[in-house]
Amino acid sequence: MTDTIDTTVRTGFTDRRGVSHSFGDADAETQVRSDDRSHVFHSWSAQAQIDPLPIAAGEGSTFWDYRGNAYLDFSSQLVNLNLGHQHPDLVAAIQQQAGRLATIQPSMANDVRGELARRIARVAPGTLNRVFFTNGGADANEYAVRMARRVTGRRKVLSMYRSYHGGTATAISLTGDPRRWANEPSDPSVAHFFGPYLYRSAFHSTTPEEETQRALEHLESVIVLEGAATVAAIIIETIVGTNGVLVPPPGYLAGVRALCDKYGIVYIADEVMVGFGRVGEWFAVDAFGVVPDLITFAKGVNSGYVPLGGVVISDAIASFFDDVSFQGGLTYSGHPLACAAGVATFDVFERDGILERVRDLGERVVEPEITAWLDRHPSLGEVRGRGLFWALELVRDRETREPLVPFNAAGADAAPMGEVAAACKAAGVWPFTHFNRVHIAPPLVIEEDELRRGLAAIDAALTVADRHTR
Amino acid sequence: MTDTIDTTVRTGFTDRRGVSHSFGDADAETQVRSDDRSHVFHSWSAQAQIDPLPIAAGEGSTFWDYRGNAYLDFSSQLVNLNLGHQHPDLVAAIQQQAGRLATIQPSMANDVRGELARRIARVAPGTLNRVFFTNGGADANEYAVRMARRVTGRRKVLSMYRSYHGGTATAISLTGDPRRWANEPSDPSVAHFFGPYLYRSAFHSTTPEEETQRALEHLESVIVLEGAATVAAIIIETIVGTNGVLVPPPGYLAGVRALCDKYGIVYIADEVMVGFGRVGEWFAVDAFGVVPDLITFAKGVNSGYVPLGGVVISDAIASFFDDVSFQGGLTYSGHPLACAAGVATFDVFERDGILERVRDLGERVVEPEITAWLDRHPSLGEVRGRGLFWALELVRDRETREPLVPFNAAGADAAPMGEVAAACKAAGVWPFTHFNRVHIAPPLVIEEDELRRGLAAIDAALTVADRHTR
Repeated sequence: MTDTIDTTVRTGFTDRRGVSHSFGDADAETQVRSDDRSHVFHSWSAQAQIDPLPIAAGEGSTFWDYRGNAYLDFSSQLVNLNLGHQHPDLVAAIQQQAGRLATIQPSMANDVRGELARRIARVAPGTLNRVFFTNGGADANEYAVRMARRVTGRRKVLSMYRSYHGGTATAISLTGDPRRWANEPSDPSVAHFFGPYLYRSAFHSTTPEEETQRALEHLESVIVLEGAATVAAIIIETIVGTNGVLVPPPGYLAGVRALCDKYGIVYIADEVMVGFGRVGEWFAVDAFGVVPDLITFAKGVNSGYVPLGGVVISDAIASFFDDVSFQGGLTYSGHPLACAAGVATFDVFERDGILERVRDLGERVVEPEITAWLDRHPSLGEVRGRGLFWALELVRDRETREPLVPFNAAGADAAPMGEVAAACKAAGVWPFTHFNRVHIAPPLVIEEDELRRGLAAIDAALTVADRHTR
Repeated sequence: MTDTIDTTVRTGFTDRRGVSHSFGDADAETQVRSDDRSHVFHSWSAQAQIDPLPIAAGEGSTFWDYRGNAYLDFSSQLVNLNLGHQHPDLVAAIQQQAGRLATIQPSMANDVRGELARRIARVAPGTLNRVFFTNGGADANEYAVRMARRVTGRRKVLSMYRSYHGGTATAISLTGDPRRWANEPSDPSVAHFFGPYLYRSAFHSTTPEEETQRALEHLESVIVLEGAATVAAIIIETIVGTNGVLVPPPGYLAGVRALCDKYGIVYIADEVMVGFGRVGEWFAVDAFGVVPDLITFAKGVNSGYVPLGGVVISDAIASFFDDVSFQGGLTYSGHPLACAAGVATFDVFERDGILERVRDLGERVVEPEITAWLDRHPSLGEVRGRGLFWALELVRDRETREPLVPFNAAGADAAPMGEVAAACKAAGVWPFTHFNRVHIAPPLVIEEDELRRGLAAIDAALTVADRHTR
């Protein structure tokens, strides 16, 4: 484990030329802000309506702005930095690999590329033994779908409402949240179905067992009515991430696996957010005892220190391409610098027992703590999650379950959630919020006292939400 | 400039644990080959029909296999490593940035992200002052098209036959080479047109002037017949890369600009391969005096040492998104480690006069040398290019211009080109070959004596091609 970080001792930061600055250096902050506002175009934003915070430094579970304000990172930078900021082992691995061979083209064989593939294969379930490396999660999903279409000779893909699979054309077509709308008409061979979500059941279920049974019945109806012989793949976030930390009820994923087998459909598990320890497993499917045909990953594989994603491929699918050319690829596939950070991630996970500590912290610290909040926060409709990945579903009214803010709210409608987020930040905790939810997704290396301190801040911030209940 | 590399003194390599090995270490090579063959799934390949060469080290314009064979890199690893292998300034920048802040999420402001955006804006033409960073060239093209569609309210995109724009769904739909076929039906809102290519003119032209005039007339016909009011964008590789180093004849790109202005179409210049010095300009459009609305880039921006791409955006398009949300994004957008390598690239280019030396080597060394080959190699149909980016078009018959191998040839049909490539490799030069062409695309830091040595090897290899002429 990393050393405990004393955030009180950090007094400044270093610029790219190696010059040290104290926090509060107004010139440095002004330059960063000026460059950003003049020249950087940001994701998913109206550019004149944002005010990106200049960040000066990060370490462990904490990052600092230029004024020296420390934020406990409860979002892991888009659920990305599983090993936290500036993990010394990852930093050293990148520095060393940069010094020996930063990159080489994908058609060559490379030591760290091969080692990372081997180590991923070793922890992947079933016969998932081959890895196609990409630049991130979106293109991993693009290429997984392409493999499924080629292998089955079918074109249609089924994905869930309330899902996110990436921003490029196929990936955004798979996505089942509002980010898809601006890209329509999207891929016409994608159809969306409803997944299990007991708190807001699409199937009027009252128990997890009922939700599982009805959600599977619904999925089979969609398969049959779309035409099973036209369906290449079903893609599912093993635990739905940004759209709600929706943990599938017992038996659901096994039922999906059985439906895929019954109809000859490729099962793609999107583990971009939940793979590599987020829920205390190498791959989240391990928590449910199912083996997909393809698993897509990114983020946690190397904590995003170098852009990397990929597809883990079953022997059956990989061998289809033994003598049939796979028609997909990219210049940076299997990038050595990115793979070196991935290999170091495996070393750290194994040496420091990361999976075990995630399960321990989730079960012993987070779950009991946030479950207790249900008794004192009327705005808290449900808590759910696993490992170090949890959602607090905030409501105006526990009886009707009316969300604290409307679906896809913006501007004044979203104000109550903005107030909750602001309260967290004022208390030194950077939260992950989405729609009417606060997610808890700190680095997996977070110290127990930091975790408890962050939870206490969120607990306090929920009193702001409570004031908006009816 | 980097020091001259004495390839005779390198005797081995270092593994990821820092252990030194001599070339010829069979165990090390066996491990790399075994991991690769068992676990790595490769781009654009039938997996059982490839035998990736394990690469142990690289430096400057040279890389080495595990047996110590040195290859002069005349492909720059897919026209990617503009500053060559292991450039000390880029390595140092990566090592330093890794030690200070490997990454931060895209919604924050970051010093090197902003500095790189500012420095790109400074060298970009016209009002192209804002940068949206992506992971690579494919997603840069995806998001450029999305911007164009949103700004114009139109959907159709026109792109060239004989082009490559990337592997993800929109990018491969834009592509005008066989790699698109496996993804069909692709985006139905893409239509392909013929670009200028005097040697094999689609317009039966006999002079560059005629080719320009007829190609523009053809493009305007396609615009009119597709419905100008339906066309959001025209995307063109400023100099077509993999599909032939097709340099547009005088006036062509200015004519494209005029047509885009006439019909309210967004002009996207794809400079993934030719940007950042490949043809002796920051952006290749500078050589033709035109200003597109969007420029996409990747590769040379940081020599691919860390995955990075992006879109440079005109003020008019950027300001459209001031109060309208741009609906696209990615976790690794504006990745600090990647941007730090980009900033270092600017430092090196400016300090070492890279653009000037590329123009000098191209004009003084490459062009006269390969032009002289026309006199003694009957297989050489045409040479063309600019800077350090050239194509040798090989033919069976100079009169009929029949290609040395058929379009998209595989297996035995492609054998003559395989023999040429093998002759280059046997002489210690790693070539870039595509269809019936050999491309010349060494690192921009190549020493003059290395360049002359590599050209001499290709000259010799062409005698193999000559034997296949009629």
